Amino acid sequence: MYGVGIGPGDPELVTLKALRILRSVPVLAWPAPEEGPSLAREIVAEHLPGTQREIPIRMPLLPARFPADDVYDKAAIEIGAALDAGEDVAVICEGDPFFYGSFMYLYGRLAEDYTVEVIPGVSSLTACAAALGSPLSAKNDVLTVIPGPLDADTMKQRLIDADAVAIIKVGGHFDKIRTLIDDLGLTANARYIERATMGEQRIMAIGDVGEDNAPYFSMILVHKRDEVWK
Amino acid sequence: MYGVGIGPGDPELVTLKALRILRSVPVLAWPAPEEGPSLAREIVAEHLPGTQREIPIRMPLLPARFPADDVYDKAAIEIGAALDAGEDVAVICEGDPFFYGSFMYLYGRLAEDYTVEVIPGVSSLTACAAALGSPLSAKNDVLTVIPGPLDADTMKQRLIDADAVAIIKVGGHFDKIRTLIDDLGLTANARYIERATMGEQRIMAIGDVGEDNAPYFSMILVHKRDEVWK
Repeated sequence: MYGVGIGPGDPELVTLKALRILRSVPVLAWPAPEEGPSLAREIVAEHLPGTQREIPIRMPLLPARFPADDVYDKAAIEIGAALDAGEDVAVICEGDPFFYGSFMYLYGRLAEDYTVEVIPGVSSLTACAAALGSPLSAKNDVLTVIPGPLDADTMKQRLIDADAVAIIKVGGHFDKIRTLIDDLGLTANARYIERATMGEQRIMAIGDVGEDNAPYFSMILVHKRDEVWK
Repeated sequence: MYGVGIGPGDPELVTLKALRILRSVPVLAWPAPEEGPSLAREIVAEHLPGTQREIPIRMPLLPARFPADDVYDKAAIEIGAALDAGEDVAVICEGDPFFYGSFMYLYGRLAEDYTVEVIPGVSSLTACAAALGSPLSAKNDVLTVIPGPLDADTMKQRLIDADAVAIIKVGGHFDKIRTLIDDLGLTANARYIERATMGEQRIMAIGDVGEDNAPYFSMILVHKRDEVWK
Protein backbone atom coordinates (compact mmCIF):
# COMPACT_ATOMS: atom_id res chain seq x y z
CA MET A 1 0.00 0.00 0.00
CA TYR A 2 1.09 3.50 -0.77
CA GLY A 3 0.36 6.99 0.53
CA VAL A 4 1.19 9.13 -2.47
CA GLY A 5 1.85 12.86 -2.21
CA ILE A 6 0.63 14.47 -5.43
CA GLY A 7 1.75 18.02 -4.82
CA PRO A 8 -0.06 21.31 -4.26
CA GLY A 9 -2.41 21.39 -7.24
CA ASP A 10 -0.55 21.80 -10.55
CA PRO A 11 -0.71 18.34 -12.20
CA GLU A 12 2.84 18.94 -13.44
CA LEU A 13 4.12 19.04 -9.85
CA VAL A 14 3.50 15.30 -9.49
CA THR A 15 6.73 13.30 -9.13
CA LEU A 16 7.82 10.51 -11.45
CA LYS A 17 7.53 8.05 -8.58
CA ALA A 18 3.97 9.11 -7.77
CA LEU A 19 3.10 8.81 -11.44
CA ARG A 20 4.53 5.31 -11.75
CA ILE A 21 2.62 4.10 -8.71
CA LEU A 22 -0.66 5.81 -9.67
CA ARG A 23 -0.54 4.14 -13.05
CA SER A 24 0.36 0.68 -11.75
CA VAL A 25 -1.91 -0.03 -8.80
CA PRO A 26 -5.28 -1.74 -9.35
CA VAL A 27 -7.02 0.32 -6.62
CA LEU A 28 -6.97 4.04 -6.04
CA ALA A 29 -8.38 5.70 -2.91
CA TRP A 30 -8.97 9.42 -2.66
CA PRO A 31 -10.31 11.95 -0.14
CA ALA A 32 -13.35 14.01 -1.02
CA PRO A 33 -16.03 16.12 0.62
CA GLU A 34 -19.35 14.51 1.47
CA GLU A 35 -20.67 15.46 -1.95
CA GLY A 36 -18.96 16.60 -5.09
CA PRO A 37 -15.60 16.02 -6.74
CA SER A 38 -12.28 15.17 -5.10
CA LEU A 39 -9.63 17.85 -5.60
CA ALA A 40 -6.93 15.22 -5.16
CA ARG A 41 -8.44 13.06 -7.86
CA GLU A 42 -8.77 16.05 -10.19
CA ILE A 43 -5.05 16.83 -9.79
CA VAL A 44 -4.05 13.40 -11.09
CA ALA A 45 -7.03 12.70 -13.37
CA GLU A 46 -5.04 13.22 -16.58
CA HIS A 47 -2.48 10.65 -15.46
CA LEU A 48 -4.87 7.80 -14.62
CA PRO A 49 -5.24 4.75 -16.86
CA GLY A 50 -9.02 4.67 -16.40
CA THR A 51 -9.12 0.99 -15.48
CA GLN A 52 -8.76 1.16 -11.70
CA ARG A 53 -11.22 0.43 -9.00
CA GLU A 54 -11.65 3.58 -6.89
CA ILE A 55 -12.41 3.99 -3.21
CA PRO A 56 -13.79 7.42 -2.28
CA ILE A 57 -13.09 8.53 1.29
CA ARG A 58 -15.87 11.06 1.83
CA MET A 59 -15.57 13.29 4.85
CA PRO A 60 -18.64 15.08 6.24
CA LEU A 61 -18.12 18.69 7.29
CA LEU A 62 -18.57 18.12 10.99
CA PRO A 63 -15.83 20.01 12.85
CA ALA A 64 -17.06 18.63 16.17
CA ARG A 65 -16.00 15.12 15.16
CA PHE A 66 -12.36 15.76 14.31
CA PRO A 67 -10.86 13.45 13.24
CA ALA A 68 -13.88 11.71 11.87
CA ASP A 69 -12.95 8.34 13.24
CA ASP A 70 -15.71 6.31 11.68
CA VAL A 71 -14.91 7.54 8.16
CA TYR A 72 -11.28 6.47 8.57
CA ASP A 73 -12.29 3.21 10.25
CA LYS A 74 -14.54 2.36 7.32
CA ALA A 75 -11.94 3.36 4.71
CA ALA A 76 -9.25 1.34 6.49
CA ILE A 77 -11.49 -1.74 6.43
CA GLU A 78 -12.20 -1.30 2.73
CA ILE A 79 -8.52 -0.74 1.89
CA GLY A 80 -7.48 -3.65 4.09
CA ALA A 81 -9.92 -5.92 2.27
CA ALA A 82 -8.40 -4.97 -1.08
CA LEU A 83 -4.90 -5.63 0.25
CA ASP A 84 -6.00 -8.97 1.70
CA ALA A 85 -7.33 -9.87 -1.75
CA GLY A 86 -3.90 -9.15 -3.25
CA GLU A 87 -4.88 -5.82 -4.83
CA ASP A 88 -2.40 -3.06 -4.07
CA VAL A 89 -3.86 0.32 -3.12
CA ALA A 90 -2.58 3.87 -3.55
CA VAL A 91 -4.16 6.59 -1.42
CA ILE A 92 -3.59 9.95 -3.06
CA CYS A 93 -2.89 12.97 -0.87
CA GLU A 94 -2.78 16.65 -1.78
CA GLY A 95 0.66 18.07 -1.06
CA ASP A 96 2.65 15.69 1.12
CA PRO A 97 1.04 12.82 3.08
CA PHE A 98 2.86 13.56 6.35
CA PHE A 99 2.72 17.37 6.31
CA TYR A 100 -0.56 17.99 8.15
CA GLY A 101 -2.21 15.44 5.88
CA SER A 102 -5.28 13.40 6.77
CA PHE A 103 -3.50 10.34 5.30
CA MET A 104 -1.83 9.86 8.67
CA TYR A 105 -5.15 8.67 10.12
CA LEU A 106 -5.23 5.82 7.61
CA TYR A 107 -1.53 5.21 8.22
CA GLY A 108 -2.22 4.88 11.93
CA ARG A 109 -4.90 2.29 11.22
CA LEU A 110 -3.04 0.22 8.61
CA ALA A 111 0.72 0.47 9.08
CA GLU A 112 0.92 -2.16 11.77
CA ASP A 113 -0.78 -4.82 9.67
CA TYR A 114 0.37 -3.91 6.16
CA THR A 115 3.49 -2.55 4.48
CA VAL A 116 2.80 1.11 3.80
CA GLU A 117 5.21 3.14 1.71
CA VAL A 118 4.83 6.91 1.88
CA ILE A 119 5.83 8.84 -1.24
CA PRO A 120 6.70 12.41 -0.29
CA GLY A 121 5.26 15.18 -2.45
CA VAL A 122 5.77 18.88 -3.05
CA SER A 123 4.10 20.54 -0.08
CA SER A 124 2.01 23.70 -0.18
CA LEU A 125 4.67 25.20 2.10
CA THR A 126 7.35 25.41 -0.55
CA ALA A 127 4.89 25.87 -3.41
CA CYS A 128 3.57 29.04 -1.78
CA ALA A 129 7.07 30.42 -1.24
CA ALA A 130 7.94 29.72 -4.88
CA ALA A 131 4.78 31.39 -6.16
CA LEU A 132 5.37 34.43 -3.93
CA GLY A 133 9.01 34.72 -5.03
CA SER A 134 9.87 34.73 -1.35
CA PRO A 135 12.45 32.34 0.15
CA LEU A 136 10.92 30.59 3.17
CA SER A 137 13.98 30.55 5.31
CA ALA A 138 17.73 31.05 5.03
CA LYS A 139 20.91 30.36 6.97
CA ASN A 140 20.11 29.87 10.66
CA ASP A 141 16.54 31.16 10.54
CA VAL A 142 14.12 29.06 12.53
CA LEU A 143 11.02 28.38 10.44
CA THR A 144 7.75 28.03 12.32
CA VAL A 145 4.69 26.47 10.71
CA ILE A 146 1.47 27.47 12.46
CA PRO A 147 -1.96 25.98 11.69
CA GLY A 148 -4.60 28.69 11.30
CA PRO A 149 -7.02 27.16 13.84
CA LEU A 150 -4.49 27.58 16.68
CA ASP A 151 -5.85 29.74 19.50
CA ALA A 152 -5.00 33.45 19.31
CA ASP A 153 -2.84 33.66 22.45
CA THR A 154 -0.60 30.76 21.45
CA MET A 155 -0.37 32.02 17.89
CA LYS A 156 0.61 35.48 19.10
CA GLN A 157 3.46 34.10 21.19
CA ARG A 158 4.67 31.98 18.28
CA LEU A 159 4.67 35.03 16.02
CA ILE A 160 6.65 37.00 18.62
CA ASP A 161 9.25 34.23 18.96
CA ALA A 162 9.65 33.49 15.27
CA ASP A 163 12.17 34.40 12.58
CA ALA A 164 10.09 33.19 9.65
CA VAL A 165 6.52 31.94 9.82
CA ALA A 166 4.15 30.09 7.54
CA ILE A 167 0.55 30.16 8.71
CA ILE A 168 -1.27 27.36 6.91
CA LYS A 169 -4.95 26.42 6.63
CA VAL A 170 -5.84 30.08 7.07
CA GLY A 171 -9.41 29.76 5.77
CA GLY A 172 -12.05 30.91 8.24
CA HIS A 173 -9.36 32.06 10.69
CA PHE A 174 -8.17 34.91 8.50
CA ASP A 175 -9.64 37.77 10.53
CA LYS A 176 -8.09 36.52 13.77
CA ILE A 177 -4.71 36.13 12.07
CA ARG A 178 -4.79 39.52 10.35
CA THR A 179 -5.61 41.23 13.64
CA LEU A 180 -2.68 39.49 15.38
CA ILE A 181 -0.29 40.44 12.57
CA ASP A 182 -1.48 44.04 12.65
CA ASP A 183 -1.18 44.24 16.44
CA LEU A 184 2.40 42.99 16.25
CA GLY A 185 3.34 45.54 13.59
CA LEU A 186 4.11 42.80 11.07
CA THR A 187 1.67 43.72 8.31
CA ALA A 188 4.41 44.95 5.96
CA ASN A 189 6.24 41.64 6.45
CA ALA A 190 3.25 39.43 5.62
CA ARG A 191 2.33 37.95 2.25
CA TYR A 192 -0.93 36.22 1.44
CA ILE A 193 -1.52 33.58 -1.19
CA GLU A 194 -4.43 31.28 -1.95
CA ARG A 195 -4.66 28.16 -4.14
CA ALA A 196 -0.96 28.20 -4.97
CA THR A 197 -0.06 26.59 -8.35
CA MET A 198 -3.75 26.04 -9.18
CA GLY A 199 -5.55 27.88 -11.98
CA GLU A 200 -7.22 30.20 -9.50
CA GLN A 201 -4.05 31.17 -7.63
CA ARG A 202 -4.27 34.66 -6.10
CA ILE A 203 -1.65 36.75 -4.29
CA MET A 204 -2.73 39.78 -2.27
CA ALA A 205 -1.64 42.19 0.42
CA ILE A 206 -3.33 41.00 3.59
CA GLY A 207 -5.15 44.32 3.81
CA ASP A 208 -6.91 43.52 0.54
CA VAL A 209 -8.36 40.15 1.54
CA GLY A 210 -12.07 40.49 2.22
CA GLU A 211 -13.41 39.42 5.60
CA ASP A 212 -14.43 35.77 5.78
CA ASN A 213 -13.10 35.43 2.28
CA ALA A 214 -10.01 33.23 2.60
CA PRO A 215 -10.38 29.66 1.31
CA TYR A 216 -9.01 26.64 3.18
CA PHE A 217 -6.08 26.48 0.76
CA SER A 218 -4.55 29.80 1.75
CA MET A 219 -1.32 30.68 3.49
CA ILE A 220 0.36 33.70 5.02
CA LEU A 221 4.15 33.97 5.10
CA VAL A 222 5.77 36.37 7.55
CA HIS A 223 9.48 37.19 7.44
CA LYS A 224 10.93 39.30 10.18
CA ARG A 225 14.50 39.55 9.01
CA ASP A 226 15.85 41.48 6.06
CA GLU A 227 16.26 39.76 2.75
CA VAL A 228 19.48 38.11 3.83
CA TRP A 229 20.00 36.45 0.48
CA LYS A 230 20.61 39.75 -1.29
CA MET B 1 15.43 31.60 -16.02
CA TYR B 2 14.41 28.86 -13.65
CA GLY B 3 15.34 27.70 -10.16
CA VAL B 4 14.37 24.05 -10.28
CA GLY B 5 13.85 21.96 -7.15
CA ILE B 6 14.88 18.39 -7.97
CA GLY B 7 13.94 16.71 -4.71
CA PRO B 8 15.90 15.05 -1.92
CA GLY B 9 18.03 12.58 -3.86
CA ASP B 10 15.97 9.81 -5.44
CA PRO B 11 15.89 10.65 -9.18
CA GLU B 12 12.28 9.43 -9.24
CA LEU B 13 11.27 12.22 -6.85
CA VAL B 14 11.77 14.80 -9.60
CA THR B 15 8.51 16.43 -10.73
CA LEU B 16 7.17 16.37 -14.27
CA LYS B 17 7.58 20.14 -14.43
CA ALA B 18 11.23 20.00 -13.38
CA LEU B 19 11.83 17.27 -15.94
CA ARG B 20 10.26 19.27 -18.77
CA ILE B 21 12.33 22.33 -17.97
CA LEU B 22 15.58 20.41 -17.45
CA ARG B 23 15.18 18.80 -20.84
CA SER B 24 14.25 21.98 -22.69
CA VAL B 25 16.71 24.68 -21.59
CA PRO B 26 19.97 25.18 -23.49
CA VAL B 27 21.96 25.99 -20.33
CA LEU B 28 22.08 24.13 -17.03
CA ALA B 29 23.77 25.50 -13.90
CA TRP B 30 24.49 23.37 -10.84
CA PRO B 31 26.09 23.73 -7.43
CA ALA B 32 29.14 21.65 -6.57
CA PRO B 33 31.98 21.55 -4.08
CA GLU B 34 35.31 23.10 -5.06
CA GLU B 35 36.42 19.79 -6.52
CA GLY B 36 34.54 16.66 -7.46
CA PRO B 37 31.05 15.85 -8.69
CA SER B 38 27.82 17.76 -8.10
CA LEU B 39 25.23 15.82 -6.11
CA ALA B 40 22.48 17.89 -7.72
CA ARG B 41 23.73 17.06 -11.20
CA GLU B 42 23.98 13.37 -10.30
CA ILE B 43 20.33 13.33 -9.19
CA VAL B 44 19.13 14.46 -12.62
CA ALA B 45 21.91 13.01 -14.78
CA GLU B 46 19.73 10.26 -16.21
CA HIS B 47 17.17 12.81 -17.36
CA LEU B 48 19.51 15.17 -19.25
CA PRO B 49 19.61 15.28 -23.05
CA GLY B 50 23.41 15.55 -23.10
CA THR B 51 23.45 18.57 -25.42
CA GLN B 52 23.36 21.41 -22.92
CA ARG B 53 25.99 23.89 -21.99
CA GLU B 54 26.64 23.59 -18.26
CA ILE B 55 27.70 26.19 -15.72
CA PRO B 56 29.25 24.74 -12.56
CA ILE B 57 28.85 26.87 -9.43
CA ARG B 58 31.74 25.64 -7.30
CA MET B 59 31.75 26.64 -3.67
CA PRO B 60 34.98 26.54 -1.65
CA LEU B 61 34.67 25.17 1.88
CA LEU B 62 35.32 28.43 3.68
CA PRO B 63 32.80 28.79 6.50
CA ALA B 64 34.20 32.22 7.36
CA ARG B 65 32.94 33.62 4.08
CA PHE B 66 29.30 32.62 4.29
CA PRO B 67 27.64 33.30 1.95
CA ALA B 68 30.49 33.18 -0.50
CA ASP B 69 29.55 36.39 -2.20
CA ASP B 70 32.12 36.30 -4.96
CA VAL B 71 31.12 32.82 -6.11
CA TYR B 72 27.50 33.93 -6.44
CA ASP B 73 28.52 37.23 -8.04
CA LYS B 74 30.51 35.39 -10.68
CA ALA B 75 27.78 32.80 -11.30
CA ALA B 76 25.14 35.55 -11.60
CA ILE B 77 27.25 37.33 -14.22
CA GLU B 78 27.73 34.13 -16.21
CA ILE B 79 24.01 33.25 -16.01
CA GLY B 80 23.03 36.83 -16.88
CA ALA B 81 25.28 36.71 -19.95
CA ALA B 82 23.54 33.55 -21.17
CA LEU B 83 20.12 35.12 -20.60
CA ASP B 84 21.21 38.30 -22.41
CA ALA B 85 22.26 36.10 -25.35
CA GLY B 86 18.76 34.60 -25.46
CA GLU B 87 19.74 31.27 -23.88
CA ASP B 88 17.44 30.24 -21.09
CA VAL B 89 19.06 28.83 -17.95
CA ALA B 90 17.89 26.34 -15.32
CA VAL B 91 19.68 26.27 -12.00
CA ILE B 92 19.12 22.91 -10.33
CA CYS B 93 18.69 22.79 -6.57
CA GLU B 94 18.63 19.79 -4.22
CA GLY B 95 15.30 19.60 -2.41
CA ASP B 96 13.39 22.84 -2.80
CA PRO B 97 15.03 26.10 -3.96
CA PHE B 98 13.46 28.27 -1.25
CA PHE B 99 13.73 25.88 1.71
CA TYR B 100 17.16 26.82 3.11
CA GLY B 101 18.56 26.56 -0.41
CA SER B 102 21.60 28.43 -1.68
CA PHE B 103 19.62 29.24 -4.84
CA MET B 104 18.19 32.24 -3.03
CA TYR B 105 21.56 33.98 -3.32
CA LEU B 106 21.35 33.78 -7.11
CA TYR B 107 17.70 34.77 -6.94
CA GLY B 108 18.65 37.87 -4.98
CA ARG B 109 21.18 38.82 -7.63
CA LEU B 110 19.07 38.11 -10.74
CA ALA B 111 15.35 38.44 -9.98
CA GLU B 112 15.25 42.22 -10.38
CA ASP B 113 16.71 42.15 -13.89
CA TYR B 114 15.36 38.86 -15.24
CA THR B 115 12.18 36.80 -14.99
CA VAL B 116 12.94 33.98 -12.57
CA GLU B 117 10.45 31.16 -12.11
CA VAL B 118 10.96 28.95 -9.07
CA ILE B 119 9.81 25.34 -9.41
CA PRO B 120 9.13 23.89 -5.96
CA GLY B 121 10.51 20.45 -5.22
CA VAL B 122 10.07 17.70 -2.66
CA SER B 123 12.02 18.94 0.35
CA SER B 124 14.20 16.83 2.62
CA LEU B 125 11.76 17.78 5.39
CA THR B 126 8.90 15.67 4.10
CA ALA B 127 11.18 13.05 2.52
CA CYS B 128 12.71 12.31 5.93
CA ALA B 129 9.31 12.02 7.58
CA ALA B 130 8.16 9.62 4.86
CA ALA B 131 11.29 7.47 5.17
CA LEU B 132 10.95 7.38 8.96
CA GLY B 133 7.27 6.44 8.76
CA SER B 134 6.67 9.36 11.09
CA PRO B 135 4.12 12.11 10.32
CA LEU B 136 5.78 15.50 10.72
CA SER B 137 2.86 17.32 12.20
CA ALA B 138 -0.85 16.92 12.69
CA LYS B 139 -3.91 18.96 13.56
CA ASN B 140 -2.89 22.13 15.40
CA ASP B 141 0.71 21.13 16.10
CA VAL B 142 3.20 23.90 15.52
CA LEU B 143 6.11 22.57 13.46
CA THR B 144 9.48 24.16 14.12
CA VAL B 145 12.37 23.76 11.69
CA ILE B 146 15.74 24.39 13.34
CA PRO B 147 19.05 24.60 11.44
CA GLY B 148 21.76 22.51 13.12
CA PRO B 149 24.29 25.38 13.33
CA LEU B 150 21.98 27.43 15.60
CA ASP B 151 23.62 28.25 18.93
CA ALA B 152 22.89 25.83 21.79
CA ASP B 153 20.96 28.25 24.03
CA THR B 154 18.56 29.34 21.29
CA MET B 155 18.13 25.77 20.10
CA LYS B 156 17.35 24.59 23.63
CA GLN B 157 14.63 27.21 24.06
CA ARG B 158 13.13 26.28 20.67
CA LEU B 159 13.07 22.62 21.67
CA ILE B 160 11.35 23.49 24.95
CA ASP B 161 8.70 25.59 23.17
CA ALA B 162 8.00 23.17 20.34
CA ASP B 163 5.32 20.57 19.59
CA ALA B 164 7.15 18.94 16.69
CA VAL B 165 10.68 19.73 15.56
CA ALA B 166 12.81 19.00 12.53
CA ILE B 167 16.49 19.77 13.06
CA ILE B 168 18.09 20.02 9.63
CA LYS B 169 21.69 20.26 8.45
CA VAL B 170 22.75 18.31 11.53
CA GLY B 171 26.21 17.35 10.23
CA GLY B 172 29.04 18.51 12.47
CA HIS B 173 26.58 19.79 15.07
CA PHE B 174 25.33 16.35 16.04
CA ASP B 175 27.03 16.12 19.44
CA LYS B 176 25.68 19.50 20.55
CA ILE B 177 22.18 18.51 19.44
CA ARG B 178 22.25 15.06 21.03
CA THR B 179 23.36 16.57 24.34
CA LEU B 180 20.49 19.09 24.25
CA ILE B 181 17.95 16.39 23.43
CA ASP B 182 19.27 14.17 26.22
CA ASP B 183 19.24 17.04 28.73
CA LEU B 184 15.62 17.79 27.88
CA GLY B 185 14.59 14.14 28.29
CA LEU B 186 13.55 13.90 24.65
CA THR B 187 15.81 11.09 23.49
CA ALA B 188 12.98 8.58 23.22
CA ASN B 189 11.05 11.08 21.07
CA ALA B 190 13.89 11.68 18.62
CA ARG B 191 14.53 9.91 15.32
CA TYR B 192 17.67 10.26 13.24
CA ILE B 193 17.99 9.81 9.47
CA GLU B 194 20.76 10.54 7.00
CA ARG B 195 20.75 10.75 3.19
CA ALA B 196 16.98 10.19 2.97
CA THR B 197 15.80 8.60 -0.30
CA MET B 198 19.39 8.13 -1.51
CA GLY B 199 21.05 4.73 -1.92
CA GLU B 200 22.99 5.20 1.31
CA GLN B 201 19.98 6.16 3.44
CA ARG B 202 20.43 5.20 7.11
CA ILE B 203 18.01 5.40 10.05
CA MET B 204 19.34 5.07 13.60
CA ALA B 205 18.52 5.73 17.21
CA ILE B 206 20.39 8.91 18.11
CA GLY B 207 22.33 6.96 20.73
CA ASP B 208 23.84 4.84 17.96
CA VAL B 209 25.23 7.67 15.83
CA GLY B 210 29.00 7.88 16.24
CA GLU B 211 30.54 11.15 17.40
CA ASP B 212 31.42 13.53 14.59
CA ASN B 213 29.85 11.04 12.26
CA ALA B 214 26.70 12.70 10.95
CA PRO B 215 26.86 13.90 7.33
CA TYR B 216 25.53 17.28 6.21
CA PHE B 217 22.43 15.59 4.80
CA SER B 218 21.08 14.35 8.10
CA MET B 219 18.01 15.28 10.10
CA ILE B 220 16.54 14.66 13.54
CA LEU B 221 12.79 14.70 14.06
CA VAL B 222 11.42 15.18 17.57
CA HIS B 223 7.75 14.74 18.40
CA LYS B 224 6.55 15.63 21.84
CA ARG B 225 2.91 14.68 21.54
CA ASP B 226 1.40 11.26 21.34
CA GLU B 227 0.74 9.70 18.02
CA VAL B 228 -2.47 11.66 17.58
CA TRP B 229 -3.22 10.08 14.25
CA LYS B 230 -3.86 6.70 15.82
